[in-house]
Amino acid sequence: MTATIPDSHVDLIDRPGIGALSTVGADGYPQVTAIWFLRDGDDIVTSLTTGRQKFKNAARHPQVTLFVIDPSNPFRTIEIRGDFTSEPDPSLATLRRIVAHYGADFDTFPAPKDNRVTVRITPHRVVTNG
Amino acid sequence: MTATIPDSHVDLIDRPGIGALSTVGADGYPQVTAIWFLRDGDDIVTSLTTGRQKFKNAARHPQVTLFVIDPSNPFRTIEIRGDFTSEPDPSLATLRRIVAHYGADFDTFPAPKDNRVTVRITPHRVVTNG
Repeated sequence: MTATIPDSHVDLIDRPGIGALSTVGADGYPQVTAIWFLRDGDDIVTSLTTGRQKFKNAARHPQVTLFVIDPSNPFRTIEIRGDFTSEPDPSLATLRRIVAHYGADFDTFPAPKDNRVTVRITPHRVVTNG
Repeated sequence: MTATIPDSHVDLIDRPGIGALSTVGADGYPQVTAIWFLRDGDDIVTSLTTGRQKFKNAARHPQVTLFVIDPSNPFRTIEIRGDFTSEPDPSLATLRRIVAHYGADFDTFPAPKDNRVTVRITPHRVVTNG
């Protein structure tokens, strides 16, 4: 285990794949949703609106985890437990970067654009399998 | 949201697929691992050894979440937030059922067989997308 993303599994982060983001709700249950994301060095970057439950959870409880499974080998995984921070993204620069990375068209992309923040997950511990 | 598994998404639970199980560690970070599982009514059943970190986490903090993504449509997901209980499985009956469900051979299956428990996740809240 490290706090960096190892070369052996960085492909799972750099490809435009689906990650499962786990936050912890006020009632103690993990909330898990599928997200798009980017890598910035060892950090994971995504875009959220502040109205989403996962944002509210992480603002209150900033320990979060991104988990990615290799779609071609479910025994090959990477788990990034990290610290959540956010800053306003009024220009939607991060949302634009993400939508472009996933090959979607920003102008027709059906994501809400108000109250967007850039979210950064800084690794605390990284666990890989396979 | 319900506390039952809706017909619209039960296929994601009944097929022998991969689930992401989130537990919460003593340090507050979610721990997420890929698991095999079965459905028993509305409960999720799996087999763990008591030495695993996810078991220790859930024994201490029994609010856990299973998340499954449709491999053919990543926007179709089911999230089962539930309550974790366990009981000893000295005959390995649950492990046998799971290995068979996934089409593997029990005798050669490389899972540790000591200290096996049957784990049950009873839904508290179920959230579906897609």
